[in-house]
Amino acid sequence: MNHAVCLLSGGLDSAVLLWHAIQAKWDPIALSINYDQRHKRELLYARQLTSVAGVEHIVLELPQLREVLSKSALTSDEIAVPNGHYAAENMKITVVPNRNMILLSIAGGLAVSRGCRYVVFAAHSGDHMIYPDCTPEFIAAAQRAMLLGTAGEDEVLLNAPFEPFSKADIVRYGAELHVPFQLTWSCYNGGYKHCGKCGTCTERREAFVLAGVTDPTEYEA
Amino acid sequence: MNHAVCLLSGGLDSAVLLWHAIQAKWDPIALSINYDQRHKRELLYARQLTSVAGVEHIVLELPQLREVLSKSALTSDEIAVPNGHYAAENMKITVVPNRNMILLSIAGGLAVSRGCRYVVFAAHSGDHMIYPDCTPEFIAAAQRAMLLGTAGEDEVLLNAPFEPFSKADIVRYGAELHVPFQLTWSCYNGGYKHCGKCGTCTERREAFVLAGVTDPTEYEA
Repeated sequence: MNHAVCLLSGGLDSAVLLWHAIQAKWDPIALSINYDQRHKRELLYARQLTSVAGVEHIVLELPQLREVLSKSALTSDEIAVPNGHYAAENMKITVVPNRNMILLSIAGGLAVSRGCRYVVFAAHSGDHMIYPDCTPEFIAAAQRAMLLGTAGEDEVLLNAPFEPFSKADIVRYGAELHVPFQLTWSCYNGGYKHCGKCGTCTERREAFVLAGVTDPTEYEA
Repeated sequence: MNHAVCLLSGGLDSAVLLWHAIQAKWDPIALSINYDQRHKRELLYARQLTSVAGVEHIVLELPQLREVLSKSALTSDEIAVPNGHYAAENMKITVVPNRNMILLSIAGGLAVSRGCRYVVFAAHSGDHMIYPDCTPEFIAAAQRAMLLGTAGEDEVLLNAPFEPFSKADIVRYGAELHVPFQLTWSCYNGGYKHCGKCGTCTERREAFVLAGVTDPTEYEA
């Protein structure tokens, strides 16, 4: 019996979350969504992670979503991914409009269909500055919408256990759980190797340094 | 400049909502979603309605959604659509898990991408008994999640103007607005004509009678 649907992008944070869900004995189903994101390379990493973890993996092919989410560097070929530090104002262009609510809602539907009690996702405190749909206030509102939208015998709870964590905290915790970090993908440019320069690459590198954990990632720059 | 994304199923309620949005000078974009629903015939009606109304119509093809929403008579070939009155306990099998939150979230993403201030949808008081994601409490929670998930300069407001209305109220209002009811589709069985027996057909017929409006629908039974 599965107890949780775990949103898995193939990135570092959600990989640690998947290991956390296994540790918590939630017997998770991992859900990844192809919305034709620029860095859809992350989905290959999600596949490897679930294979190593030995959990069921559902990849939903929803490439047409890109049409409605086109106002972002992650979903438009015409907008470049900005380099530099994540907190900078120009990183706002990587916001995919209302993405988390879309992903969470679909995960909630799957949770009901499969009789799961929880949806878990990996928003953390480092995301708050840029992404409105990662704040504690948003998470609380989404929890309530999830609970009421699925009310009845199949009621689903939304769980974001990393909400108070920094990315360095997540790396530290992931190291304890022996998460295979080399099988995670962060880079928004979605090339063959991590570019090492975009916002997520910068954040990823910093997090390993701050956590005092060896970074197994091969960066281009 | 469009001000609203209007969720349009092709049914009676959302058709009246579209005419309401035009009347309100929101210059709406209509959004319909193909989640491979049994009654996807409704999408043909949505197309005709937008053509008559002269508004932009976006149909998102997301048939894979059916895989995660399979615990319903509307999305599973193995579960029959129940007949009889809508309020009956057995109509619960027509609940598509978390559907409205999924549709609303996608509409919210489109609203941001297109610079629209509102997402409007046609939940009404007759839906409350069966569908958890049509209650005033759910709508309030979804409003808050929408507002926070899109917070910033592109903030989107969720508007459900028919929430206190009965379906008869909607028919009465639609008649005032000269909505072409013959171009709307309600039947969950999705045959060539309205079956006249399923929950939505029963509700549709009753609403016209209660409103004192001539029902232009051809029913099989």
